[in-house]
Amino acid sequence: MKQINGGVTIPKGFQAAGVAAGVKKNGKTDMALIFSEVPATVAGVFTTNVVKAAPVQRDIKIVKNNETVQAVILNAGNANACTGEPGKEADEAMAAAAAEGLKIDKEAVLTASTGVIGQLLPVEKVTKGAKMLAEALSDTVEAGALAAEAIMTTDTYRKECAVEFEIEGKTVSIGAMTKGSGMIHPNMATMLCVAATDIAITKELLQKAMSEVVEDTFNMISVDRDTSTNDTYVILANQKAGNNLITVEDENYKKFVEALTFVSRELAKQMAADGEGCTKLLEMQVIHAESVEQAKVLSKSVITSNLVKSAVFGNDANWGRIFCAMGYAGIEFNPDLVDLYIESEAGKLKLVENGMATDYSEDLATEILSGKTVTAIADMKAGACQATAWGCDLTYDYVKINGDYRS
Amino acid sequence: MKQINGGVTIPKGFQAAGVAAGVKKNGKTDMALIFSEVPATVAGVFTTNVVKAAPVQRDIKIVKNNETVQAVILNAGNANACTGEPGKEADEAMAAAAAEGLKIDKEAVLTASTGVIGQLLPVEKVTKGAKMLAEALSDTVEAGALAAEAIMTTDTYRKECAVEFEIEGKTVSIGAMTKGSGMIHPNMATMLCVAATDIAITKELLQKAMSEVVEDTFNMISVDRDTSTNDTYVILANQKAGNNLITVEDENYKKFVEALTFVSRELAKQMAADGEGCTKLLEMQVIHAESVEQAKVLSKSVITSNLVKSAVFGNDANWGRIFCAMGYAGIEFNPDLVDLYIESEAGKLKLVENGMATDYSEDLATEILSGKTVTAIADMKAGACQATAWGCDLTYDYVKINGDYRS
Repeated sequence: MKQINGGVTIPKGFQAAGVAAGVKKNGKTDMALIFSEVPATVAGVFTTNVVKAAPVQRDIKIVKNNETVQAVILNAGNANACTGEPGKEADEAMAAAAAEGLKIDKEAVLTASTGVIGQLLPVEKVTKGAKMLAEALSDTVEAGALAAEAIMTTDTYRKECAVEFEIEGKTVSIGAMTKGSGMIHPNMATMLCVAATDIAITKELLQKAMSEVVEDTFNMISVDRDTSTNDTYVILANQKAGNNLITVEDENYKKFVEALTFVSRELAKQMAADGEGCTKLLEMQVIHAESVEQAKVLSKSVITSNLVKSAVFGNDANWGRIFCAMGYAGIEFNPDLVDLYIESEAGKLKLVENGMATDYSEDLATEILSGKTVTAIADMKAGACQATAWGCDLTYDYVKINGDYRS
Repeated sequence: MKQINGGVTIPKGFQAAGVAAGVKKNGKTDMALIFSEVPATVAGVFTTNVVKAAPVQRDIKIVKNNETVQAVILNAGNANACTGEPGKEADEAMAAAAAEGLKIDKEAVLTASTGVIGQLLPVEKVTKGAKMLAEALSDTVEAGALAAEAIMTTDTYRKECAVEFEIEGKTVSIGAMTKGSGMIHPNMATMLCVAATDIAITKELLQKAMSEVVEDTFNMISVDRDTSTNDTYVILANQKAGNNLITVEDENYKKFVEALTFVSRELAKQMAADGEGCTKLLEMQVIHAESVEQAKVLSKSVITSNLVKSAVFGNDANWGRIFCAMGYAGIEFNPDLVDLYIESEAGKLKLVENGMATDYSEDLATEILSGKTVTAIADMKAGACQATAWGCDLTYDYVKINGDYRS
């Protein structure tokens, strides 16, 4: 498997476009379209929030009932959530306009929205945008980048990832794009993610692979613990690679899962690193845990603690907060066994041994915490399991961005 | 029942003191002592954090095994958590020094600490402080205030409350002091709270009353979702009021629960309103819910959302975030039924009807959100139950205080 430059247009038979349809007030691009030249097997994972945006409600039905779809249309600037029947009609109209432009059935078009909650989606703008998108479609790397840019909200850079690998001598690709960056939290967040692949795989296994992969990637990141109304991760597999259809969990399936894990983890880390207002990526590794569950719960609790996140922003080796956050995670462990390290490009330092402070250098600790990617490692010395969670620091800018998001 | 000026020294037979023992680097008072002239029935509620500070571990044992205690000694500036055996020994030494000064048994002295985690409690300073405290004890209102001030960490004002009520013609009092204000979260936080009362009640009922009261008061506030290693709420009842011992859940018991609820709720609200860096108190009422559980879960989820808290700081009526936070709370409800209001000294406004935005005035909404106490009311229109949770806004100063707490 190797990583290659580009995103959703890398796999064979996929086209993309991004345009400015006037949904965002600032005039930036705000609509994207991903199109597969042939019907593509579909799978999806959606928000667990009780309050589900109109496009999420619609996608869930389609992904459940249909074997294939052929397009995904997305808009930023308006979440189309808490908008009642008018919201559902606007969503349907956006899908219909895309279908018309693409000359395919309306049911073959998925929708996704992100932005402000509770405002009606401007139907005229998004239907006009849908037609512009259909005309602008292209299979170039640049077209994929334009699509990835168009779904950004408070993201500061576009997020794409693509890999290729071999199955039966055929080159198979996965390309994906995603957006963060507020409302990111384990159990999915407003994140929108669209992955495209040319692999041939049954719908059942595509869904299984995706659900497994999400657990260790997107569900292990958090920016602010707020799980959104709009989280959507869909994957389209259009069989253009020419491999024999994967129907069982064989070696080929495992190769695909490995590649999808890589792409999803890269995008998840990109989202965490671009968390609203953040200055650094925070990686929490829990190693030698009794169970994977224990390692996951503890690592997630640390990266979601406002106190830990503030201390990391301040480059303050206040390790007691990491212990505290593990302690209230809701799972048992023996704090008196735990060793704690911090690590970044500036070095590695053991702060705690057997639950008590070592005689570490505060200066070196501050230097390590000043890195762009800071890793904390809790060695539980209790077993053979491990997990990693990713988050970011909590900053003045997070408060600024979110105190004034709608204006 | 009426509220009266003062704190822990209001009930008969209680004395208090606060001194500067040098635990805090800034020279402010940092140790407090509460003393009952006679042995007092004791009950307590402690942190659920797996990582428990040395004083918490000690207090849990004493409250479980002993019918009465006679004193509580507290220090701020050092949490004595994650300090292993040396921490336990330091805690024991602090209790022993207080016991010696008071000429009572060491087991009759509870301890509580708050401050930085992971640093050894300075034994010499706290034992010297314990002796100073024993000599400074007084039953005046001022002595109670001094004790309340000495346990402050990042609190900006001391927190006390006292009430009196009648049982069988006898005047009964409850007086309490508490400190916040970081690490405050449902399921107790570093909060320390000591309540004194002169009522005569069995230990079993005292514990029952306290556990019930905590559920609707201290466990309904949050500053930052971080549950600390040190949370402690203890109550001492010394029988000096002269009422007949309360042994069953009769009218007198109910009067006591009502008074204790009042005191605990007032202190809980004071803590939320003094959340680190905050500019306003946020009150979330969920009314006409299907169950109390539903109302509690939903209201707590709203006041713990960083996105809601940031929007409230920015006076931004971004009500979608309130819906979103209810949606991921982990409990079912029908969002299409919900009406949402905001209210403060500037007025009351309906933002949402049946899950969709009303045609409200953004100017009035901003004006209402600019109040010192902002209440949001979600009318679920689904039942007869309700709950209220209290929190605060998320501000630049929260980040500042916690990015640099230890220096």
